[in-house]
Amino acid sequence: MTPLKIAIAGLGTVGVGLVKLLTDNNPEISKRAGREIEIVAISARDKSKYRGVDLSKFQWIDDPVKLADTDADVIVELMGGEGGSAYALVKTALEKGKTVVTANKALLAHHGVELAQIAEKTIAGLLFEAAVAGGIPAIKVLREGLSGNKIRKLYGILNGTCNYILTTMETSGRDFPDVLKEAQDLGYAEAEPSLDVDGGDTAHKLCLLSSLAFGIVPDLEKISTNGIRPITAEDIQAADELGYKIKLLGQAECINGQVVQLVEPCLVPKNNSLAHTSGVLNAVYVDSEPVGSTFIEGRGAGAGPTASAVMADLIDLARGNRIAPFNQPVAGLQSGATGQAAAKTGSYYIRLKVLDQPGVIAEIAAILRDYKISIESLIQRGRDPDQPVSIVLTTHDAKREDMNSAAAKIGKLSTIIGEPLVLSRLIL
Amino acid sequence: MTPLKIAIAGLGTVGVGLVKLLTDNNPEISKRAGREIEIVAISARDKSKYRGVDLSKFQWIDDPVKLADTDADVIVELMGGEGGSAYALVKTALEKGKTVVTANKALLAHHGVELAQIAEKTIAGLLFEAAVAGGIPAIKVLREGLSGNKIRKLYGILNGTCNYILTTMETSGRDFPDVLKEAQDLGYAEAEPSLDVDGGDTAHKLCLLSSLAFGIVPDLEKISTNGIRPITAEDIQAADELGYKIKLLGQAECINGQVVQLVEPCLVPKNNSLAHTSGVLNAVYVDSEPVGSTFIEGRGAGAGPTASAVMADLIDLARGNRIAPFNQPVAGLQSGATGQAAAKTGSYYIRLKVLDQPGVIAEIAAILRDYKISIESLIQRGRDPDQPVSIVLTTHDAKREDMNSAAAKIGKLSTIIGEPLVLSRLIL
Repeated sequence: MTPLKIAIAGLGTVGVGLVKLLTDNNPEISKRAGREIEIVAISARDKSKYRGVDLSKFQWIDDPVKLADTDADVIVELMGGEGGSAYALVKTALEKGKTVVTANKALLAHHGVELAQIAEKTIAGLLFEAAVAGGIPAIKVLREGLSGNKIRKLYGILNGTCNYILTTMETSGRDFPDVLKEAQDLGYAEAEPSLDVDGGDTAHKLCLLSSLAFGIVPDLEKISTNGIRPITAEDIQAADELGYKIKLLGQAECINGQVVQLVEPCLVPKNNSLAHTSGVLNAVYVDSEPVGSTFIEGRGAGAGPTASAVMADLIDLARGNRIAPFNQPVAGLQSGATGQAAAKTGSYYIRLKVLDQPGVIAEIAAILRDYKISIESLIQRGRDPDQPVSIVLTTHDAKREDMNSAAAKIGKLSTIIGEPLVLSRLIL
Repeated sequence: MTPLKIAIAGLGTVGVGLVKLLTDNNPEISKRAGREIEIVAISARDKSKYRGVDLSKFQWIDDPVKLADTDADVIVELMGGEGGSAYALVKTALEKGKTVVTANKALLAHHGVELAQIAEKTIAGLLFEAAVAGGIPAIKVLREGLSGNKIRKLYGILNGTCNYILTTMETSGRDFPDVLKEAQDLGYAEAEPSLDVDGGDTAHKLCLLSSLAFGIVPDLEKISTNGIRPITAEDIQAADELGYKIKLLGQAECINGQVVQLVEPCLVPKNNSLAHTSGVLNAVYVDSEPVGSTFIEGRGAGAGPTASAVMADLIDLARGNRIAPFNQPVAGLQSGATGQAAAKTGSYYIRLKVLDQPGVIAEIAAILRDYKISIESLIQRGRDPDQPVSIVLTTHDAKREDMNSAAAKIGKLSTIIGEPLVLSRLIL
């Protein structure tokens, strides 16, 4: 059989990892794929840079968009970025009827529908296993493994940087700024860490997963997104005592026909597998009918795991298998079916710093009562003389909008220092 | 597009679950599959039995093998059993070039290669996602999600009955016979439980997984198989104190080019996800290069999960996707590449019942020393006057054949009561 010809745009760690993987595991790959997978052209910013692998046998093309003009069957886009060359290349390639494999979540979160529509028109493929949860075949599991199910909920630990930081805060008892600094020194966090720690990267991935799971148009704007900066070592400690771990979760749930999507740190009960996903690992938990719960965990980033996911897409293509990028034709995706997080009901963890004065708890309790939020437990913690006191509350079920309003009102009390932290507790 | 026509053989809980699933989730299924999936004929033992769903609109055929003569594109075999009608139907259907979807691990473990060869000749499909780990898309993850990887090891909790019994022994402190009885009363265990509790069912599933993972001919005979009957509540308690859970694992590992396969209860460190797979859940852990570890957990049996897996295969077929049953043409599978468990190295847990006499420990220690097995810890437990004493030992790394020989010799000491129990400790 003729080889599957590929062209690679971007030779960072993942691109080089892919070249290496194709060499190292060539016997397994060609046996399983039923044919050779052959690199015919490559493109990256700097031709002269030494990358640790021999690239001399591949045609070098300076302008990545020109890869679409080669005789490659598949363009592998590993440059990253939601626009620029990545967008131009993927769009051009699809327009020419060339199949694209990409690891670019930002590109797909912003332009996925437009690109899928082009792919439909030109009967090209658009595959992106590597865009979500790295080496975990999360997209395959959702799109194929659970294809007979109605998805009720999905939760994902989708950002290894955040999970590493939270795990290290937990094991070391240190606070966020300190651990972030260390993660940056170790190369686990970017110098400009916002996209990771403020939840944006998780939102990119979540919107792709929820599109596949619920048949909706990916809509980043509708995802209520909060990151992990407000979490303190004290919160992690208090959660632990209550029987929970704090995890940054991408969450999507179908409530009355509306898909509610959130990215935020949550309390995950220790008896759920997500609570044990530690360090840089990623995980996805899906609750669907009739299969029930499915959990998958693995390495979410890095050269090897990402190359593994790209290779799975390439082998699928070599085998001749093809699935609509968003699990069904774009025309079938629902738009406007995304609901407001405020409508969700849940139980909460609230942490407050208060001045130790008579009547403080009475004031807080009165506000919660006014919003019909019932207190499940209240702990006043770690009091040094003349220092503010921490109060940790947990509530019974309440509407999120009521909880937010109550927290805002509590935050305005003169005895409260800083912002109250409200986290939801997962019921699994 | 024309519907995918299917015929179902076997209308037990899974068969009926499949009919129900196809009705309940029809809109999702046909959208994702790109066409309708339509039942054209059914067959089961008793036509008159009421099964809770309306079957009157499907053509009823008394002899299941005759389903191969209908105009169905796909035969779904849900009768079970390694031979008999199931074998006859699957073979006949494949010979006629009809694709088969089956949940029948015993059939595939015994006749999988022969059937795959027929399927290759007639260009028919043979899919069996439901045969291993029920609703967990374990086969898809191995065969497609990790298709670019070299698999080093795989471990599976593949039998829900055993995992339920071990979990209940752990939470209740009760012993095996008592918990087995309860599981039988609850319908979690068969009246004749051997196939589950002695590890045979796990071996069926393991031989399919290791064929896919390592590219070997499935060979049930080569799997060293031990069940959970010898495990006591005391073992579970002792393991817990040492930082482990006891799980019945199917294990396959490539050692010097030889695939060593085992089914046996093992000590799993609590920091590994497999340790947290409790009750009737199943799980598969794969260590492969370059992706590293991948873990997937979910419901391994029952109508809903099994129907979900069968449906995933059917949707793949409706989408036009097809993969060689054993991940590559049968001719490419290696035979004779399975190694002996005895060659494996590992560290062990040993539990002995001894008469409390002077010199007992000296005798045991001398035997271990003679086999160059070094003791890591030794605990003498729970002594009532005039009662036998339990000794729990853990060892450093040793060859399994040495450990077995030492245990046999220890078992012959006059001070030892019953058989020594030897379990390996997993290093993950």
